[in-house]
Amino acid sequence: MHEFDLIARLKPLLPSNDFVVAGAGDDCAVLDLGDLGHHTLLKTDAVVEGIHFTRDADPERVGHKAIARCLSDVAAMAGQPIAAVVTLALPPGHDAGWCEALYRGLCRTAARHQVAIVGGETTTNPDRVLVNVAMVGRVPRGRAIRRSGARIGDALFVSGELGGSIAGRHLEFEPRLAEARWLASSVDVHAMIDVSDGLAGDLRHLLAASGGLGAEIRAVSLPISRTARERERTGDLAKPALLAALTDGEDFELLFAVAPSDAVRVLDGWKTMFPEVRLSCIGRITADPAVILCANTGIKPMPRGGYEHFHGTP
Amino acid sequence: MHEFDLIARLKPLLPSNDFVVAGAGDDCAVLDLGDLGHHTLLKTDAVVEGIHFTRDADPERVGHKAIARCLSDVAAMAGQPIAAVVTLALPPGHDAGWCEALYRGLCRTAARHQVAIVGGETTTNPDRVLVNVAMVGRVPRGRAIRRSGARIGDALFVSGELGGSIAGRHLEFEPRLAEARWLASSVDVHAMIDVSDGLAGDLRHLLAASGGLGAEIRAVSLPISRTARERERTGDLAKPALLAALTDGEDFELLFAVAPSDAVRVLDGWKTMFPEVRLSCIGRITADPAVILCANTGIKPMPRGGYEHFHGTP
Repeated sequence: MHEFDLIARLKPLLPSNDFVVAGAGDDCAVLDLGDLGHHTLLKTDAVVEGIHFTRDADPERVGHKAIARCLSDVAAMAGQPIAAVVTLALPPGHDAGWCEALYRGLCRTAARHQVAIVGGETTTNPDRVLVNVAMVGRVPRGRAIRRSGARIGDALFVSGELGGSIAGRHLEFEPRLAEARWLASSVDVHAMIDVSDGLAGDLRHLLAASGGLGAEIRAVSLPISRTARERERTGDLAKPALLAALTDGEDFELLFAVAPSDAVRVLDGWKTMFPEVRLSCIGRITADPAVILCANTGIKPMPRGGYEHFHGTP
Repeated sequence: MHEFDLIARLKPLLPSNDFVVAGAGDDCAVLDLGDLGHHTLLKTDAVVEGIHFTRDADPERVGHKAIARCLSDVAAMAGQPIAAVVTLALPPGHDAGWCEALYRGLCRTAARHQVAIVGGETTTNPDRVLVNVAMVGRVPRGRAIRRSGARIGDALFVSGELGGSIAGRHLEFEPRLAEARWLASSVDVHAMIDVSDGLAGDLRHLLAASGGLGAEIRAVSLPISRTARERERTGDLAKPALLAALTDGEDFELLFAVAPSDAVRVLDGWKTMFPEVRLSCIGRITADPAVILCANTGIKPMPRGGYEHFHGTP
């Protein structure tokens, strides 16, 4: 069973209460804990050896990745991260120096974003290392940017570059916290999500959350990473770079929708504020629920499943 | 390297900020997120197949245990649990019915304590199931009960019965939330901890956090569970029941210290409020940092490490 099918089956079971502003189904949960100025964000996420990092990966970079994934989710709500707790599940007798290095990387990234680490549980996972980070953040009341607010005609933007993250960037990416908070303070962002499963997949999540809208994406506007292009040229197993940009995952960039009348303001302001981070207008939201990829060679549907369906039909 | 040694090495690395009221080292972290009436509690905890439950355990009870462990930590701060997020790490192709049953158990316990489940991540752990629960709660400002406030002469109490939890109770225990909140509202509780590693170990945590105090425990007052006694009588591998009560772990009872002048009020009030839950006064806090076990047969030190050192020398 696919992860998303399982989540869909489980979601109706989940109890709620009066503290919940937004439950499961967005980048973070949103809670009202009584602060008159803010809502509270809550997120949990894990990285697993052999899945999200290899055994020989630099532990400092693994620690960075473990917390930066949560930070990226807080960014996607335009939030401010505040504090995190860590569960470190280890094989018995695991090297203490490795654990310290992991914590050094994790704490350095936390400190850079003024996040406190307020608890560090350790437990046993006999076969491999697993690191879970749970984070609280905050956002001005009612100003969390959800996945669900995209409107027909909205311009779609994506930050940074996409594809080929597996070559190293997945251990080094910087969560787009400053960019997201600038966006939220500068323009009415209708919907936002962080690109963790690949643009094709996460765009679909945003469209589904926004009531089943569709999108037209211009292939020529997609910010394909240099790494993805190089991997296409040199790698034996590499996907075409366009496919990599759509489906590789672990980009941790921001995908967001604004009214078309705000598009130029977003591009100009971003260029001034973040001259070193690319921002691309990649297409627009449509009423037709299909997701269409418009290329020089013609128009074709962007498959629902991303990678699985697209692979082999470049 | 022992879990607690690793934590001690890592603790100085952890960044803090102005939101932190109490960081790592208590049952929950305490944060000030701006609610004028409350502080926020944050906790994370994991259960792992083969460590905290067996592969053939009833998944509903595993789900109960996964969240009840966090609830017990919120109870130990005299807090109110509010919301939780779940990380479910599964081998590929794991039975979806099993996952649903786990969530049913988890959600039923959450709902019974008015806790919302506001996110459910799934990820891959190839060899075994791991369930991490992260929880936020709240407590009236400045009223979180820490481990660190025990004073010389305080009376020590423990709820329920101890030992033999492995026979089944570890999957069924009810976190002492109502009891803890009643205590906090009725008397000045100086220090409290939940007994998860065994009374001998957790008492030592409370004493260390309180500035290196000691304790005298009366063996005859320890609430040894019927299960621990039966296991001693019938089991091949069982420990003596007294040793089991001191070191088995996973009791999830409350251990707390109050002024001796409050002791009778606590016992009387508890009996009225919670007639079905035993409460035992097991000893007192001393200035001498040793932890002493007083039995009919004489006095002996309670070893620091609990189980490891005590085993074989009943």
